[in-house]
Amino acid sequence: MSSPESAGHGSATQAPIEYADASPEVRAVYDDIMATRKSDWVNNYWKVLANHPPTLRRMWANSKEVMGPGALDPLTKELIYLAVSVTNACRYCIASHGAAARNKGMTPEQHAELVAIIGLANETNAQAFALDLQIDDKFR
Amino acid sequence: MSSPESAGHGSATQAPIEYADASPEVRAVYDDIMATRKSDWVNNYWKVLANHPPTLRRMWANSKEVMGPGALDPLTKELIYLAVSVTNACRYCIASHGAAARNKGMTPEQHAELVAIIGLANETNAQAFALDLQIDDKFR
Amino acid sequence: MSSPESAGHGSATQAPIEYADASPEVRAVYDDIMATRKSDWVNNYWKVLANHPPTLRRMWANSKEVMGPGALDPLTKELIYLAVSVTNACRYCIASHGAAARNKGMTPEQHAELVAIIGLANETNAQAFALDLQIDDKFR
Amino acid sequence: MSSPESAGHGSATQAPIEYADASPEVRAVYDDIMATRKSDWVNNYWKVLANHPPTLRRMWANSKEVMGPGALDPLTKELIYLAVSVTNACRYCIASHGAAARNKGMTPEQHAELVAIIGLANETNAQAFALDLQIDDKFR
Amino acid sequence: MSSPESAGHGSATQAPIEYADASPEVRAVYDDIMATRKSDWVNNYWKVLANHPPTLRRMWANSKEVMGPGALDPLTKELIYLAVSVTNACRYCIASHGAAARNKGMTPEQHAELVAIIGLANETNAQAFALDLQIDDKFR
Amino acid sequence: MSSPESAGHGSATQAPIEYADASPEVRAVYDDIMATRKSDWVNNYWKVLANHPPTLRRMWANSKEVMGPGALDPLTKELIYLAVSVTNACRYCIASHGAAARNKGMTPEQHAELVAIIGLANETNAQAFALDLQIDDKFR
Repeated sequence: MSSPESAGHGSATQAPIEYADASPEVRAVYDDIMATRKSDWVNNYWKVLANHPPTLRRMWANSKEVMGPGALDPLTKELIYLAVSVTNACRYCIASHGAAARNKGMTPEQHAELVAIIGLANETNAQAFALDLQIDDKFR
Repeated sequence: MSSPESAGHGSATQAPIEYADASPEVRAVYDDIMATRKSDWVNNYWKVLANHPPTLRRMWANSKEVMGPGALDPLTKELIYLAVSVTNACRYCIASHGAAARNKGMTPEQHAELVAIIGLANETNAQAFALDLQIDDKFR
Repeated sequence: MSSPESAGHGSATQAPIEYADASPEVRAVYDDIMATRKSDWVNNYWKVLANHPPTLRRMWANSKEVMGPGALDPLTKELIYLAVSVTNACRYCIASHGAAARNKGMTPEQHAELVAIIGLANETNAQAFALDLQIDDKFR
Repeated sequence: MSSPESAGHGSATQAPIEYADASPEVRAVYDDIMATRKSDWVNNYWKVLANHPPTLRRMWANSKEVMGPGALDPLTKELIYLAVSVTNACRYCIASHGAAARNKGMTPEQHAELVAIIGLANETNAQAFALDLQIDDKFR
Repeated sequence: MSSPESAGHGSATQAPIEYADASPEVRAVYDDIMATRKSDWVNNYWKVLANHPPTLRRMWANSKEVMGPGALDPLTKELIYLAVSVTNACRYCIASHGAAARNKGMTPEQHAELVAIIGLANETNAQAFALDLQIDDKFR
Repeated sequence: MSSPESAGHGSATQAPIEYADASPEVRAVYDDIMATRKSDWVNNYWKVLANHPPTLRRMWANSKEVMGPGALDPLTKELIYLAVSVTNACRYCIASHGAAARNKGMTPEQHAELVAIIGLANETNAQAFALDLQIDDKFR
């Protein structure tokens, strides 16, 4: 008797699509990722997204625009990304953006300060909720 | 008949303690906050914490140490704080640290990029969870 | 021209159903809530749930069983409820269970300690994520 | 010298209770789970809950009522469950309800759209917090 | 003496940009939003995003692609969006996507079931974390 | 060609610092941890924090003050800590504070009730968000 909970067409985890197996459409995105990053490989996030090419294309366009050159320097952008990823407990994102931050020059001392700020902010956020703090007029 | 849900000794929201009404112990912390910040006022977070002086003292010591001079510049520290506070949806903290960031020089363009990065990170964090991404060996 | 975003059949916020307007089925639940709590009123959570009687009945049965007499004393149960509600930033739940905790004897000093622990736990949770801590063998 | 952190009576992780080892009370729930699902096995969530039979019974009653036939079709119910589980980063729940959704007919294309919507919603939620958006009158 | 916490160039909350005051670039996006939705107005989310036109353009492109016609019907897409928004406690998003769902046909009964599923999923997610559930082999 | 994502100076996961390898400053904290806990070992959280001695010192001072003797008994403090850690899905913290709670006397029955309350609170929190509940006047 078949179980309604057993996977019908494979498990939830989708296999990453390697460059050699990718369609021209997917390869074009991989090529742009590597060229933009001056890198010779693509990480799993993109290779798994590639199972749905419109999402791969869309997310790369977003990432390229948001994380590209702007008013904030590249390292600061990665630290902000890390602060979100840690608060959400996203192990994959902490690993990938931690590596990116180190490549953009994050020192161990800066990492320690980053972790301390993230911890403190999570603490004071919770206290603000618990005490139902009213926003000061000067902040409005 | 009294209700088991009515507040026995006042509501959950505690009144902020103003300088004029504060004990010497609390005033000493307020004085250090204002001196450190080169400011002439103290915001509600501290004035509500003052209802429990050991917590006021402890949290100010933590804040002074973590947010003080270090390997990350003051504006970057505030942006990290904001990234956490937005992810946690802490209105008070977004208001107070948004003001602090603007005072430390955050431009409207930098703010727009901050919001874009926070949004993107929350999106990709969720995708990483949904797809149960395996961490690339190069990131380990 | 009608907007696809305007509310078709009323807004998202449902009106609470007062005892006088309630069906016998709903009144029976209200009566049991008041009898169990030795109270003469019912708070908004239940009065809004009453718009869908099966949910009202189901949630009251759950609440009565989980929050009723057991191995943990009534105040400890409320403190645990509050710790979750603060971490989730649920203003309504903090207000209602804060009132319940005070009625069950929570002192201002206990409340201050509760807030301190919640804050610390949120801080160290974030640090544990940031540092990707391995679980000690002794904890397994 | 004993450590205050070592486990006194076994670790936090409780062993699942298999059918062969279950009490009649627990078996009755397992039987109803399998009959309702037209399945011949029970997944770990229920087998671990079985360590506390009142919770097993209560949660199955809730699940049966909430996830049973109603105004939303079975697949839509699973997609909603998945959206919550992904947002909370619950690996177990994503695995179990992902399998359930596939069994109820979720196609790879639908799964890709589900993931895209969850990602987008998490992004815009964060933006709404960052910008402290006022709710439009038409939405009230 | 100026305070380091007072807002330097206005508060954190940005004013929505009305159509009459919008640049041609922004008006083009507003026009497409209204045409796509067959509506005659634009809600605050877009009008506040308009303070940074590249973000307005980017987010509308994403929203149009993700929420447009596909393998999931329009109402199901909104229910998934709502499930995420409720779990994240995003009041604005619950109001706006609640209105959208009602316009796409969500009945009160369906709404009640939606809320029940979201609640149950948040409950069982927490239980799965507490019990550190192992993923069944059949789900892998 | 080097990848911008490969780790420049080691991976994100920092090695725990064992007592034998620790500086006198770090050993002093370890000694106080063990003396306070009447234990002969130190868990990974502290040994990884030791990579940044000011954070180690600061966090131990916080933990000792917040979790030390007070108006709430030691077991209740651990249950509150666990409620937060479960809600945040912090596996490390659930393991370490679960062990601490068992050492302070938490029984299996109390643990089962703790999990049930955490689950219920997460459920009702979500319902309160979904229904945008107004806070009763009696709770203000």
